[in-house]
Amino acid sequence: MERIKPRTLSGFQELLPGRQIQFDRMLDSLRRTYSLYGFTPLDTPVIESAEILLAKGGGETEKQIYRFTKGDSDLALRFDLTVPLAKYVALHYGELTFPFRRFQTGKVYRGERAQRGRFREFYQCDIDVIGDGKLDISNEAEVPAIIYDAFTALGLERFKIRVNNRKILTGFYDMLGLGDRSGDIMRTVDKLDKIGPDKVRALLTEDGVPEDAAEEILRFIAITGENDQVLTALREYRGRSETFDLGLEELETVVKHLAAFGVPEDHFAVDLTIARGLDYYTGTVYETVMLDHPEIGSICSGGRYDNLAEYYTDRKLPGVGISIGLTRLFYVLGEQGYLNDDLLTAPADVLILPMTEDQSPAIAFATRLRAAGVRTQVYGEQKKFKAKMSYADKLGVPFVVFLGEDEAAQNAVKVKDMASGEQQTLPAADAAAQIAAALEDKRGGRPIREPKQD
Amino acid sequence: MERIKPRTLSGFQELLPGRQIQFDRMLDSLRRTYSLYGFTPLDTPVIESAEILLAKGGGETEKQIYRFTKGDSDLALRFDLTVPLAKYVALHYGELTFPFRRFQTGKVYRGERAQRGRFREFYQCDIDVIGDGKLDISNEAEVPAIIYDAFTALGLERFKIRVNNRKILTGFYDMLGLGDRSGDIMRTVDKLDKIGPDKVRALLTEDGVPEDAAEEILRFIAITGENDQVLTALREYRGRSETFDLGLEELETVVKHLAAFGVPEDHFAVDLTIARGLDYYTGTVYETVMLDHPEIGSICSGGRYDNLAEYYTDRKLPGVGISIGLTRLFYVLGEQGYLNDDLLTAPADVLILPMTEDQSPAIAFATRLRAAGVRTQVYGEQKKFKAKMSYADKLGVPFVVFLGEDEAAQNAVKVKDMASGEQQTLPAADAAAQIAAALEDKRGGRPIREPKQD
Repeated sequence: MERIKPRTLSGFQELLPGRQIQFDRMLDSLRRTYSLYGFTPLDTPVIESAEILLAKGGGETEKQIYRFTKGDSDLALRFDLTVPLAKYVALHYGELTFPFRRFQTGKVYRGERAQRGRFREFYQCDIDVIGDGKLDISNEAEVPAIIYDAFTALGLERFKIRVNNRKILTGFYDMLGLGDRSGDIMRTVDKLDKIGPDKVRALLTEDGVPEDAAEEILRFIAITGENDQVLTALREYRGRSETFDLGLEELETVVKHLAAFGVPEDHFAVDLTIARGLDYYTGTVYETVMLDHPEIGSICSGGRYDNLAEYYTDRKLPGVGISIGLTRLFYVLGEQGYLNDDLLTAPADVLILPMTEDQSPAIAFATRLRAAGVRTQVYGEQKKFKAKMSYADKLGVPFVVFLGEDEAAQNAVKVKDMASGEQQTLPAADAAAQIAAALEDKRGGRPIREPKQD
Repeated sequence: MERIKPRTLSGFQELLPGRQIQFDRMLDSLRRTYSLYGFTPLDTPVIESAEILLAKGGGETEKQIYRFTKGDSDLALRFDLTVPLAKYVALHYGELTFPFRRFQTGKVYRGERAQRGRFREFYQCDIDVIGDGKLDISNEAEVPAIIYDAFTALGLERFKIRVNNRKILTGFYDMLGLGDRSGDIMRTVDKLDKIGPDKVRALLTEDGVPEDAAEEILRFIAITGENDQVLTALREYRGRSETFDLGLEELETVVKHLAAFGVPEDHFAVDLTIARGLDYYTGTVYETVMLDHPEIGSICSGGRYDNLAEYYTDRKLPGVGISIGLTRLFYVLGEQGYLNDDLLTAPADVLILPMTEDQSPAIAFATRLRAAGVRTQVYGEQKKFKAKMSYADKLGVPFVVFLGEDEAAQNAVKVKDMASGEQQTLPAADAAAQIAAALEDKRGGRPIREPKQD
């Protein structure tokens, strides 16, 4: 038979078993954090009508989207989880309860140019709170807490959530008489981290911003320091723009609730340079950076928007949401040595080696272990003892159980702790509980372990 | 702005929040059962090169597959999880440990004619054990235990696992001198349940099977009864075909281990009419039927095969696997009233209603509840009390917590059990643990609850 060379498309993550378990552990952790905040899980189709996905149209999206026909249907693969959410909420509006809080973790597709660390199929892990007409600022105040808990549960410590408010920016540009160009200006200012203040000033004046206004802008975005210092500096601008004043009030609410939410001050910063490019956002905006790897960019971003589903309904559906691109984050963490390799990645907690021809006692003991929640495999292949132990080693199974004639006769099992090498014979009746307890100890730890910085 | 009418493609499952939680609970339960048997999770791309997916080619697959080009690439969406597994094992052969036991739960795509209860995007929940060159019969013996545990954990009780062995059938047809036509004959015999013995006999003789052989075949597949009776009847045929004798020995091993695996006799039957259409299978084959809904057909099927990846590698990779089509099963269970609607489907366990302008005490208490693992939402919208309670009602939240000036001053919370209507004021310090304990009671029960049969 002619063989076809097996391959996986470039830009598509396909992990070996140990890595897959590490990935799934992170995914589970995020889902758990989102659940703890009362978000309901959602799962929408990967394929949608192209007309639906491209309702907004234009730009990179149109170029990158996977679009095709099947029969008469013009179809496409979702490129994010926000557009499907907008469709879902518009379509099922009458059956949902608002504020509608949903999380979704799923694969999205973008036919980007393939390069290291760039993915064409990747997981997004999103939450959104959608209001019906209105949505209280307290929802925006809650988001930093969710981000903080999400990364802390994963084991990340050295990160910072950076927050701004689009109304403060819009209001500020209104004051300068540049309100109609604030979108363009914010896109330029957003580059500050990458290109520095001088180039930002040059770009602004190139675009026709008067020099004194450009100077004013740079002075404004240079406002930094502790949250209180920044808020104090911002209060100087009050009374000149309603939008600004409202934005400042919102930002004050967000900052005020941090302590009650348990977010430490050093994990949070008001940062006036953040605008999140998109014109979509209208209130609080969020970015999250790893302190030791700022070059990675934001690992969790989002913000407040006023109209989730304007392309599908004339109802006003404001919301706030964030997104974590887990596939890329996982890749980067792996590259930078952040994955906690001490955690178990074996498919089973116990490998039972039957040493008798009749496997019944081994199977019966496996059944007992599983009933105690212990992941158990009976090794049934006809191999030499050495090959069996090598199998256990390669899988990284924490415990091996031997069941020979002697043990079967005594209704006992011999248990070997593969880490310590210790071996003991236990009554079969007690062994399951003892192994389950020992596993609890081995199961501690979080998916991420930060490397020691040199 | 012109609106586009929101819609979801037909044949694509999109659930409302409560149903989604029920679906996810079933998916989680299956993943847990598979994990308990030492299977490792795998997640392969949804998109593969069309050449890879269509290596086997022909038939329905080619017609139903979603295939498209992107740039120069000829791509397709996976139509099952077996072909991607074959590719995975062939590609990563050198990095895997055999027997390789993996489970995968993921969406697959088939552009079938749309009709009620038929899906174009649906979840398959698969396990496979792949050997390198050889694979012991004990793996085939283990499968009924996994099927039994999987459905029992879901809450299904009235089902039966039906098992046969392809070698018995092949050997039997060899005895009749019909060995070269056994594939065709088995496909005809497979229709017995649907068309009855007379039509099967007619079809067989139409296809050129001698009348006495057709009679012999019908007598053979009419062998039924308790497992021991069937095995005894089969032993009468021994000594006339090596293949038959080997198949019988394998079947005896499978039956023998049932007790040790904890599978009750009444949930298992040897059934000589099962052949699983495909020529792919070479040993034990499995089907699972709901006793009260045989019309649904098999809800979990699979079997032993000799060559997983013959299109990609010349290595012999025998295996055994089963698949559950969860989307269709879930749909059918819903239609037939099998979903346990008593289980919580609220996105949160506790909804906190702050009764003071300052939400800080409410947020601080929410933070405490989440630390105790309680899914908590703070309701922050500015609404009337009645609207707030109606929100809690609609979500089906089990507990509502009121936090007014009085409670805040006393460092207490007022907790309402929404099911009983009971209300009590508790010290904030104790409340989290008490609520967590009360939730344990409410969380019991399995995703499926069989309706009383009339």
